[in-house]
Amino acid sequence: MAHAIAPLTVTEQSIHILDQRHLPTQHILQECFRGDQVVAAIKVLAVRGAPAIGISALYAMWLYAREFHNHSSFQLAMSDAAERLAHARPTAVNLRWAVRRALGVVSESSVDTIHQLRNLADQAHQEEIVINNRIAEYGRSLFSHSVTILTHCNTGSLATFGVGTALGVIRALHNHSKIDRVYVDETRPLLQGSRLTAWELQQEGIPSMLIADNMAGHVMKTQIVDAVIVGADRICLNGDTANKIGTYALAVLASYHQIPFYVAAPLSTFDPQMAHGDLIPIEERDADELRQYGTIPTAPHNTPVFNPAFDVTPGSLISGFITEHGLITPPYTDVLPRLFDKLAQNGGHSNA
Amino acid sequence: MAHAIAPLTVTEQSIHILDQRHLPTQHILQECFRGDQVVAAIKVLAVRGAPAIGISALYAMWLYAREFHNHSSFQLAMSDAAERLAHARPTAVNLRWAVRRALGVVSESSVDTIHQLRNLADQAHQEEIVINNRIAEYGRSLFSHSVTILTHCNTGSLATFGVGTALGVIRALHNHSKIDRVYVDETRPLLQGSRLTAWELQQEGIPSMLIADNMAGHVMKTQIVDAVIVGADRICLNGDTANKIGTYALAVLASYHQIPFYVAAPLSTFDPQMAHGDLIPIEERDADELRQYGTIPTAPHNTPVFNPAFDVTPGSLISGFITEHGLITPPYTDVLPRLFDKLAQNGGHSNA
Repeated sequence: MAHAIAPLTVTEQSIHILDQRHLPTQHILQECFRGDQVVAAIKVLAVRGAPAIGISALYAMWLYAREFHNHSSFQLAMSDAAERLAHARPTAVNLRWAVRRALGVVSESSVDTIHQLRNLADQAHQEEIVINNRIAEYGRSLFSHSVTILTHCNTGSLATFGVGTALGVIRALHNHSKIDRVYVDETRPLLQGSRLTAWELQQEGIPSMLIADNMAGHVMKTQIVDAVIVGADRICLNGDTANKIGTYALAVLASYHQIPFYVAAPLSTFDPQMAHGDLIPIEERDADELRQYGTIPTAPHNTPVFNPAFDVTPGSLISGFITEHGLITPPYTDVLPRLFDKLAQNGGHSNA
Repeated sequence: MAHAIAPLTVTEQSIHILDQRHLPTQHILQECFRGDQVVAAIKVLAVRGAPAIGISALYAMWLYAREFHNHSSFQLAMSDAAERLAHARPTAVNLRWAVRRALGVVSESSVDTIHQLRNLADQAHQEEIVINNRIAEYGRSLFSHSVTILTHCNTGSLATFGVGTALGVIRALHNHSKIDRVYVDETRPLLQGSRLTAWELQQEGIPSMLIADNMAGHVMKTQIVDAVIVGADRICLNGDTANKIGTYALAVLASYHQIPFYVAAPLSTFDPQMAHGDLIPIEERDADELRQYGTIPTAPHNTPVFNPAFDVTPGSLISGFITEHGLITPPYTDVLPRLFDKLAQNGGHSNA
């Protein structure tokens, strides 16, 4: 079953993207008939979260196929479109994974392609829900007692199509009465924690406490935090993990306070092509994200800004990866290559 | 010489507080004729920064004396007022230090007292400028090459009455062409970094780069940071230091990256009564500081919030204290008690 909160819904001819920039105060749906509208929505973060971006990209490829089906050079138009889509955001691997998966079914016949792309998107959409549930259950099984979890950014139903990744684990724990409290980092600059995660938790009555990002160290030192659980945008073969900016600092702080630090992510977020984190491209976003909030200035208007959207946490600081195949623990350089070899042999991982 | 930017200016009968909540977009002066107006300004953070709060409190005591000079129970009214003032904010020790200093000159004669309190405030005001300059010079002398400094919150002319503490060191380095860059944490929730520090640096053309608090770890890992320099609100005899929330996390991150971490503060910020940091009261502020920006909601309106305004950095993570008496380095439990004994013998430290 799909979760009540969803980043997009689908009709016969379009998709409706829930514009997450305006949550939680306004629920605005953007109807997209063309793939380029989805590309724009991904760029401005109307839809965000690595898994949700991946599925949105599959639907975008379907919309492109509908748009180009009378083109004489259908395949060329599709591969150009795929290029634009793949470059909408650089860090999350799920986008590239989705585009590659979609290009695999593009044939000369545009009619067949439209049908197959829609099926592919619907199928991945359903798979994501199942994968989320598995991650949630594996994550839940890590904790035998009631726990307080600290999380960052939004990894819930708005970022995926099911219960979420890190937030899916938290939901499953809550369903088993095992959540004492969730500390939610507000996650500057775009406040995905306070706008989206706090809102999702509130919908379901999960006890939460909002904090500014710079309070996480003080919370770990002076309050009880049993584990930090976050999502991921790209995971390398050695366990190095790109995720929302601030994740790396949390991992250092968790290590200092001897608090377990888990990454919850589907296998589609692992990039077997990438040996280590220094290779991951880190998106830098517009300076005004830090210089104004809405229309209110928060800094001198021409102040120079460094605004990386992601950082890389070394595998050495990660206690384990909670995936749909169970918990993966160190040494990652041994375990991850073997897992991906096995999956590739079984044809079970399209990202390999 | 006083610095061009000042948290307050003084007339014959009032003080004008620059309301820092509206900077950098609006320069609003609040004229205070009564001490309670200053208490209110301190509570809402119209004036903030431990040294500036201390001096403002001295002027508040002068205003109280003017207001109560015809009271039959002048001394009682003054001690009640001092009580209100001392409790305006709990964490910074400078406020209590100032109130104690002011109460020391309150006599039965209200006319004498008014005159003496004004002199005391003016004198402390001038002392602060000299102390700032000494801190700045001692701090500058720590670095022989051009450096990149990361700083937090605002410790400049708006927080003191001179060149600032941590920002005074940065100004002195810049005056000697030794600043490559200053990374400025925006400092949630009230953005003293982006609104005030970025603005002060810009006024003087000091190369700066604004970041969100959660980017500091990534900056230390991927960019060059030669030292972290912050201010302080209260320093214990073992070196444990209360400062703006987020300071503790920065100290842990600096330690992890082997980056020196300095606290620049006048001796009036040291509290010889306090053996260690667990004893320091930590102010918690209104939840709406995290639930809205101006009038724009940033989270569900009734989300529970934890909003401590300060945290405590253990002395073990602090490379040194830059004071008007020079650099103080570990072991603090040996050095600090001896320094304060010596100062008390010489009558040189009113806080002992």
